[in-house]
Amino acid sequence: MKIEFKVLKFIRKYNMYSPGDRVLLGVSGGRDSMVMLDIMDKLKDILKIEIGVAHFNHSLRKEADSEEDFVKSEVLKRKITFYSKKEDVKNYAKTHKIGIEEAARTLRYNYFREILKKEKYNKIAIAHYSRDLSETVVYRLIKGTGIYGIGGLLPINENVTRPILILNFENLEKYVTINNVNYVIDQSNFDTKYTRNKIRHKILPYFKEINEEYENAIFRFAEITWEYRNFVENIFNSRVEIKENIYILSLENDFIDNEILRLIFLKLNKLPPSKEETEKLLKMKSKGKRKINGLIIIKNKDKLEISKEVNSLGGK
Amino acid sequence: MKIEFKVLKFIRKYNMYSPGDRVLLGVSGGRDSMVMLDIMDKLKDILKIEIGVAHFNHSLRKEADSEEDFVKSEVLKRKITFYSKKEDVKNYAKTHKIGIEEAARTLRYNYFREILKKEKYNKIAIAHYSRDLSETVVYRLIKGTGIYGIGGLLPINENVTRPILILNFENLEKYVTINNVNYVIDQSNFDTKYTRNKIRHKILPYFKEINEEYENAIFRFAEITWEYRNFVENIFNSRVEIKENIYILSLENDFIDNEILRLIFLKLNKLPPSKEETEKLLKMKSKGKRKINGLIIIKNKDKLEISKEVNSLGGK
Repeated sequence: MKIEFKVLKFIRKYNMYSPGDRVLLGVSGGRDSMVMLDIMDKLKDILKIEIGVAHFNHSLRKEADSEEDFVKSEVLKRKITFYSKKEDVKNYAKTHKIGIEEAARTLRYNYFREILKKEKYNKIAIAHYSRDLSETVVYRLIKGTGIYGIGGLLPINENVTRPILILNFENLEKYVTINNVNYVIDQSNFDTKYTRNKIRHKILPYFKEINEEYENAIFRFAEITWEYRNFVENIFNSRVEIKENIYILSLENDFIDNEILRLIFLKLNKLPPSKEETEKLLKMKSKGKRKINGLIIIKNKDKLEISKEVNSLGGK
Repeated sequence: MKIEFKVLKFIRKYNMYSPGDRVLLGVSGGRDSMVMLDIMDKLKDILKIEIGVAHFNHSLRKEADSEEDFVKSEVLKRKITFYSKKEDVKNYAKTHKIGIEEAARTLRYNYFREILKKEKYNKIAIAHYSRDLSETVVYRLIKGTGIYGIGGLLPINENVTRPILILNFENLEKYVTINNVNYVIDQSNFDTKYTRNKIRHKILPYFKEINEEYENAIFRFAEITWEYRNFVENIFNSRVEIKENIYILSLENDFIDNEILRLIFLKLNKLPPSKEETEKLLKMKSKGKRKINGLIIIKNKDKLEISKEVNSLGGK
């Protein structure tokens, strides 16, 4: 199958875009984002969507400005609207006391959301592909996760879409060769002091030795976990009632109780409790009450009532 | 918590043994199996079980016979019944055209089952620990698996139990030091031409660099998948009717349909279909019929009827 049709089929399977959507592509100028740009440019009429490109200049390397020029010329060549912004990521990281990677991601996404609002785009497209998905699965497995979380990078998550997530390394290499796609090489990707690069350059090459097709294998595994997420979300809707910011979970004493409880934490932007803590919460006696990770959980007969802890210093 | 109590709690959580059980421990003489022997010897009275030890001599290395002698003396020292058998694994692998590892496992388990029957044991105990579980999870992830399969090594699977699965590398090292447990070192474990050893010696050390506690993180992830397995098994019992060797699955058009369909293949000892094939089977029109991996699947209104393909050469 032609690579662009593989992407089209994937976009349709996950209903990523609807006719009339205005999709902003995040393009760094690296191979992956240039492939996404080239494919989305070909598919935009079939999908009846409009596309624009945003480039965020991190000012992290001396090549940053020439890369911006490169992306700009590639985008304008294709008669696509181009946006860019330059910011000092290092400085932001320093003042906010966070890592460079995190600072870069925060500023980049802030910028994308800013254009979304100002220029009336309704979706963002990010050029993650299946090796990035493998990295995320492995990263979460190492750090600790559940079935719900391991699938990490989703094809569509609110307004963030990942149209080329289904492509593997070989697909990308083949595509740039066949279609003469130009791109820049980001040297910082090879620095293995970053955890992600360690997974990419130290761990995944062994995965490939063991199974040449490992990216596809992990992609299929992740797809099953995405379906599982949907399944849990549907049960969430049938078991949980939200009343005045209190989540009321009707317990059915099955495995899914655990999953829904953890999901409620996520929906309230709180860290989900560990497996042991979750079990303790579910086993509370009626009238039992616990505080954990900023939430208050009260057992009321066969229901759990979950709400945000109100700061007791706040008055009434 | 004392390490032996961690094991006791784990054994109880998964109802591994009942009073009166006769448990046969597979002991190679390596660190892990010697720890299991030492702990089970301490716990046997609390659990009200009897234990015996089986050692299988693979005749693979020149040290094999002295290792057998070592295990025998350690077992007899503890006044536990000892069984052993010596077989030529290399020769068996050659005549059956299979790998050494597979031949070793087949012959070893055959031997354990033989003693089980002859000497009236009803459970086998294997000394897998949480790094082995991590290896299995990673191995399956690389080769391709679903949520159901990724948790790999189960605490209890039919009559095979894994009492020390909850222990991690540090627990084992600490236990042998504190308790002066003797053991032999198996050099073949370091040969990275075997996939398992590649995962152990090349991949997992990077996992540890990223998260010192990765074995515990993967253990907890696996535990969630075990609960998920139980959940699916319970739904299996409510949705599947077995009539004259035909599995009749009542479809509910949810994610669990896929999982149950794949589980039916496993229960009939057939390779489960891929995600794509599973979806095709579920989407068949009424009266639709397909053959796949040795099974016949017929759609009958909102039911799937699954049965083994009868060899057409075999007559009626």
